Amino acid sequence: MRMYDVITAKKRGLELTDDQIAYVVKGFTAGEIPDYQMSALLMAICLKGLNMRETTTLTLEMAKSGDMLDLSAIRGIKADKHSTGGVGDKTTLIVAPIVASLGIPVAKMSGRGLGHTGGTIDKLESIPGFRTTIPADEFIRNVNEMKLAVAGQSANLAPADKKMYALRDVTATVDNISLIASSIMSKKLASGANVIVLDVKTGSGAFMKTFEDSAALAEAMVTIGNNCGRRTYAIITDMNQVLGRYVGNWLEVREAIDILKGQGDEELRLVSITLASYMILGCGVAASLDEARTLAENAITSGAAFAKFREFVERQSGDVRFIDDPASMTAADFEVPVYAPCDGFISEINAEEVGMASLLLGGGREKKEDSVDPLVGLRVDLKVGDKVKAGQLLGVLYADDEARIEAAKERFAGAFRYTGESVNAVPPIYAYVDENGVHKV
Amino acid sequence: MRMYDVITAKKRGLELTDDQIAYVVKGFTAGEIPDYQMSALLMAICLKGLNMRETTTLTLEMAKSGDMLDLSAIRGIKADKHSTGGVGDKTTLIVAPIVASLGIPVAKMSGRGLGHTGGTIDKLESIPGFRTTIPADEFIRNVNEMKLAVAGQSANLAPADKKMYALRDVTATVDNISLIASSIMSKKLASGANVIVLDVKTGSGAFMKTFEDSAALAEAMVTIGNNCGRRTYAIITDMNQVLGRYVGNWLEVREAIDILKGQGDEELRLVSITLASYMILGCGVAASLDEARTLAENAITSGAAFAKFREFVERQSGDVRFIDDPASMTAADFEVPVYAPCDGFISEINAEEVGMASLLLGGGREKKEDSVDPLVGLRVDLKVGDKVKAGQLLGVLYADDEARIEAAKERFAGAFRYTGESVNAVPPIYAYVDENGVHKV
Repeated sequence: MRMYDVITAKKRGLELTDDQIAYVVKGFTAGEIPDYQMSALLMAICLKGLNMRETTTLTLEMAKSGDMLDLSAIRGIKADKHSTGGVGDKTTLIVAPIVASLGIPVAKMSGRGLGHTGGTIDKLESIPGFRTTIPADEFIRNVNEMKLAVAGQSANLAPADKKMYALRDVTATVDNISLIASSIMSKKLASGANVIVLDVKTGSGAFMKTFEDSAALAEAMVTIGNNCGRRTYAIITDMNQVLGRYVGNWLEVREAIDILKGQGDEELRLVSITLASYMILGCGVAASLDEARTLAENAITSGAAFAKFREFVERQSGDVRFIDDPASMTAADFEVPVYAPCDGFISEINAEEVGMASLLLGGGREKKEDSVDPLVGLRVDLKVGDKVKAGQLLGVLYADDEARIEAAKERFAGAFRYTGESVNAVPPIYAYVDENGVHKV
Repeated sequence: MRMYDVITAKKRGLELTDDQIAYVVKGFTAGEIPDYQMSALLMAICLKGLNMRETTTLTLEMAKSGDMLDLSAIRGIKADKHSTGGVGDKTTLIVAPIVASLGIPVAKMSGRGLGHTGGTIDKLESIPGFRTTIPADEFIRNVNEMKLAVAGQSANLAPADKKMYALRDVTATVDNISLIASSIMSKKLASGANVIVLDVKTGSGAFMKTFEDSAALAEAMVTIGNNCGRRTYAIITDMNQVLGRYVGNWLEVREAIDILKGQGDEELRLVSITLASYMILGCGVAASLDEARTLAENAITSGAAFAKFREFVERQSGDVRFIDDPASMTAADFEVPVYAPCDGFISEINAEEVGMASLLLGGGREKKEDSVDPLVGLRVDLKVGDKVKAGQLLGVLYADDEARIEAAKERFAGAFRYTGESVNAVPPIYAYVDENGVHKV
């Protein structure tokens, strides 16, 4: 087989065979296929497309390119969730303990944040003492004994995807649904769960800006998952504003605790309960989505979900004094209120800009090597559709470095758009996706 | 400017600006733009196309990427010709002296052969003593004094094209009319002639297999040339069989001498006269193509063209005893007749296969580093449409290495296809192309 012929076939719009796709992924991962041939093929794929069979094969081959997590030592049907990346998205911290409290094993590999979106690992590490690097046997034992463990992603999880993504990133071949779907799903498949629930974000703060693109991506990922024998669902959720009220690592843990205690932001609660419900349904613990929803809600009201979170933090050496009493955590040095400049209605809160404001305060990374400040971040007090008066509080920045405040403040204030006419609130969830397609709410 | 944005623009089917194209060619030639970005752009170009403005700019930028030959020291309007590559194509050896004998300066840079097509430089070097590497001042002086010089192409002629072609060759991005046209024309523009006549081959032995592709390429090149202030014409000629009767370096020189002496193959004579006529017309030495044709024909009948060829060979140190008496040249060691296996009509003589037979005998190169045997080659005695009887002579192989004969013989014989029904002869010329478009014969 020759790479030249594979490129030619895709350039002519032909379907690639499974053997051709396996050859490309193996050869590229091993360094036998050079970048310049791979980028030509990637461009041909962007312009001629991959069908679902090709996309599924590509995903499986990328999943198999490195370690395939063996979760067979964990009893029961394992559930996983994944978000395509949002600002203020702390749902894993809420969903995982809800589901685990119902006896469903959650063995979760998570990433660090990059750019304007945060990562679950960074958030957990804001809890003093919390270990995100844990040996495989401890990881498995924790899930077996208490149904929940979260660890940083192995460097060798789907290395083909890592290498391919780096090339796509510099050759303008990122924005293809098949390539995006296979990139995400290859890591999920390699992570070993039986049930996968995806949170596909849509809007100004998301990678996918339009509902149509998000729906296409969600449908592709659900199809890949089901094709590969994993029960897979997706929900399409809003990222035209921050999810919840807080952005910043510790601030988000604290907000997650609020939700687990039955308090906090309604939209965040709804998205979290919905994700948990699909995980519960997928594992067969409930017979219908409604029943699953009731189980998830009861896990909160009963206190079981919070207790599971506390147990999980303790198991991974986190200091539970801060879970029991979040207010006892050291605060950031500066609290900077930001006010509305005019009367009107809020028509947009650009979530990417809000994320960048938090990053400027030190709460996120521009480069992989950057470290994050666990205490900084911000609070958003208003939502799209809210009526506002000049001088009213928009939110608060939490800063440790005085020199960074001005730029972050400007970025944060600039994220808000105002209009004289009343504006509808943005719904938190737009659609559900299962093997039968996309169902708008 | 960022390469990423240029790739994105072409991927979306947008027109590239002149600045963007200049940035790409300069950056790639200088090694600042990596191969993997360039191949992504080339694939996007293959699938989204370049319009004539973009193609012209690309060609000019590639021409300017290295040495631009300065022919200003040569008096008069300089004419050049170029063939897209054929088997048995020795027209340069005929056309150049015809035109030069009429006082038109021909300062020709030529290449070596590669694959199944031959190169003018290899052919000239089959004349003992002939120098194809001559200093610039001697090259200019020869053209001024006797109107004709031929030298090997400078390594620094359009280096952007050289580098780009090497990448296209391994990334399946060769077969795009704009890229092919700009590759050829960049070298022609850099070679400095005012009038350019192109011989675009079409058929089984040509790079372009169909008339439509050949016509599109010819039209693109004529437009580029005229856009860049060079009077440019093209003719589309047949490569469904060998041009003339002989293939092989010295054998082709000998056949060219026959034509210059008013003998030899009629199709070869017609193609040569036509190319010469357009050069004469383009330089303004004749007022019409018919007048130009008469001048060209007279140059042969008067002996002026042959005399010019002899003078040219002598100037470049070739041994003119072999020009005066070609039969005195050492012959190849073996003459191997090849016979028809059956009765019928010849429906095809695959020129690429005939070229490969000559290559197998040592007359061509598979790799750039290979040396060629000047004496080997073959003669084709029949043409498409000829009636043939089993056992009739198809042609003769001229070989120096006995071990190579069998494979070459098989390849040569395999090039012929037979049919029971009578077949029309193949016309040597299909169309003429000028600034007004393609005119079928």
